[in-house]
Amino acid sequence: MQNNRSTLFFKNKPMIIGNYSTVGSKEGHGNFSKYFHCVLDDDKFGEKTFEKAERKILEHTLNHAVKGANLTMDDINVLVCGDLLNQIISSTFAARKFGVPYLGLYGACSTMTEGLTLSAMLVDGKYVKNVLCGTGTHFSSAERQYRNPLELGNQRPQTSQWTITGAGASVISSEGVGHYIVSATIGKVVDYDVKDVNNMGAAMAPAAMDTLITHFKNTNTKPEDYDLILTGDLGKLGSEILIDLMENKGYNLRENYCDCGHMVYSDTQKTHQGGSGAGCSASVFNSYVLAKLTDGSYKRVLFCATGALLSTLSSQQGDSIPGICHAVEIIRNEKVKKWR
Amino acid sequence: MQNNRSTLFFKNKPMIIGNYSTVGSKEGHGNFSKYFHCVLDDDKFGEKTFEKAERKILEHTLNHAVKGANLTMDDINVLVCGDLLNQIISSTFAARKFGVPYLGLYGACSTMTEGLTLSAMLVDGKYVKNVLCGTGTHFSSAERQYRNPLELGNQRPQTSQWTITGAGASVISSEGVGHYIVSATIGKVVDYDVKDVNNMGAAMAPAAMDTLITHFKNTNTKPEDYDLILTGDLGKLGSEILIDLMENKGYNLRENYCDCGHMVYSDTQKTHQGGSGAGCSASVFNSYVLAKLTDGSYKRVLFCATGALLSTLSSQQGDSIPGICHAVEIIRNEKVKKWR
Repeated sequence: MQNNRSTLFFKNKPMIIGNYSTVGSKEGHGNFSKYFHCVLDDDKFGEKTFEKAERKILEHTLNHAVKGANLTMDDINVLVCGDLLNQIISSTFAARKFGVPYLGLYGACSTMTEGLTLSAMLVDGKYVKNVLCGTGTHFSSAERQYRNPLELGNQRPQTSQWTITGAGASVISSEGVGHYIVSATIGKVVDYDVKDVNNMGAAMAPAAMDTLITHFKNTNTKPEDYDLILTGDLGKLGSEILIDLMENKGYNLRENYCDCGHMVYSDTQKTHQGGSGAGCSASVFNSYVLAKLTDGSYKRVLFCATGALLSTLSSQQGDSIPGICHAVEIIRNEKVKKWR
Repeated sequence: MQNNRSTLFFKNKPMIIGNYSTVGSKEGHGNFSKYFHCVLDDDKFGEKTFEKAERKILEHTLNHAVKGANLTMDDINVLVCGDLLNQIISSTFAARKFGVPYLGLYGACSTMTEGLTLSAMLVDGKYVKNVLCGTGTHFSSAERQYRNPLELGNQRPQTSQWTITGAGASVISSEGVGHYIVSATIGKVVDYDVKDVNNMGAAMAPAAMDTLITHFKNTNTKPEDYDLILTGDLGKLGSEILIDLMENKGYNLRENYCDCGHMVYSDTQKTHQGGSGAGCSASVFNSYVLAKLTDGSYKRVLFCATGALLSTLSSQQGDSIPGICHAVEIIRNEKVKKWR
């Protein structure tokens, strides 16, 4: 049992039959602008507060993922959702709006793969038919909850990342046509005693390493078996650390590995190490990655969203930053003709 | 599908093979003192802060639940855990200590039944063998995060409840001997526009009603089919509201219904409406309720932990309090001879 402690195999191949991504204007000027479904001009989305904007972005994304799957909210059995705000209020209020049975998660920026894992299990085990899964973040709500008031205009350290304004959502189902979720590895909390809250990549990279190696061992695969290995938001520095850590363990990630945070912004956007936030990997996965699976560029993808599970209080009380990473393996369904 | 949208049936009957409860001294002087496994003299459990005490109480409880199941942490495939602190740090740091694959939840005070639902699914679907599931709260950490500094000495409104200091944990497995989890209903977010953060019972009662009625319909059962229907922490007022709401819908809860929050403290303890907090229903379920299933007092129990999904920020921005309730049905296994 120990050798296969935490990898779940989905023999009935649950499918991602709908997906959607919404991002803010800054993200819309990044590297994936032509892949995102919706780019907002107004980061507040017409709302009075950043938190209400984050909620509206998430609701908009969940709603359109369901439409993309040619379903209505009444067809959704369970909404699996989480976000970064205290008590995950964006998710909860979205669930309230839609009136759908709801499981709230907290996995920080690993939420998308934690959600996909649970969604795949709900469908694969034939407990329910359609699950909606998503997450989102907002730069400004995250800054003021976790860091400093924007009005302070603090200079950002070179190791920092930029929490993206955006959301991504998937509909997982036993019926319809979509790419397959075939397995998932639930990650452990790994902590290498990094205490610098402005260097999340370094804090999360060891967790990504742990989950990747566990997944390779449990599934008897190697990095080269995948067309793409994608971490969530380690950023530029964090993903370089991961490559080094993996090399030390005998795994070569130099060929087919990318990080959503590293890729999402262009080099001219001055975000330092790149993007972060639960919405980062969620929006990139639900746009670019699924599009590339659909057009055949990728056949087998290992999607590993990473999370830093600290709170402002845990840091204030001297704790280091615990990291986590859940990996989800997706295989191309060639019957998917249209990129949604 | 709509008629059975969100009730999961566990045909392989996952079992609760280990359980444990830890509470503070105030709870130890309440109505269930002889059922709790561990009553602390020191609410800080030797730690310097309330948050670190909450974490230690949860760790202690999780550890002993595993021991009670005659397992070690190495036998546990997944830890499913959540709590009330921002970014659920008690759960995360417990997961870090144990090095077990970890799924973090946020369901406020509904966490125990959200966790039992997911744990039962992980085992029932044969994804893994042993799942550890728990939650805990601390009066003093909750007060200062959600309400006021203790040092203020504020008078508490008559409708308020007292967040318990305590934790409860269960080990769910496909092997061994334990009472059976046979079904679970995932709740919707229900909001009757209650905005009084000192009246959580009123905010959560409509969600409990919604889940109870859904569960009865989906399982084709009536209240009288259960020996005990137990809500999480509606408290005295909230449970009276639930009885009234259910009566209006044609269901009689007057015979076999109790609420953990209402029962946990004695009348002389001046907690006003009784206990609350994720640790309330978790500790009562994992002590008194499982003991009464073991001695044959109960054969069929419907355990419905309830949660108020607000944050301080959502209230500050004028939002009302969304409620949720997940129901888990447990059936006695008469082979369980020893109350753990």
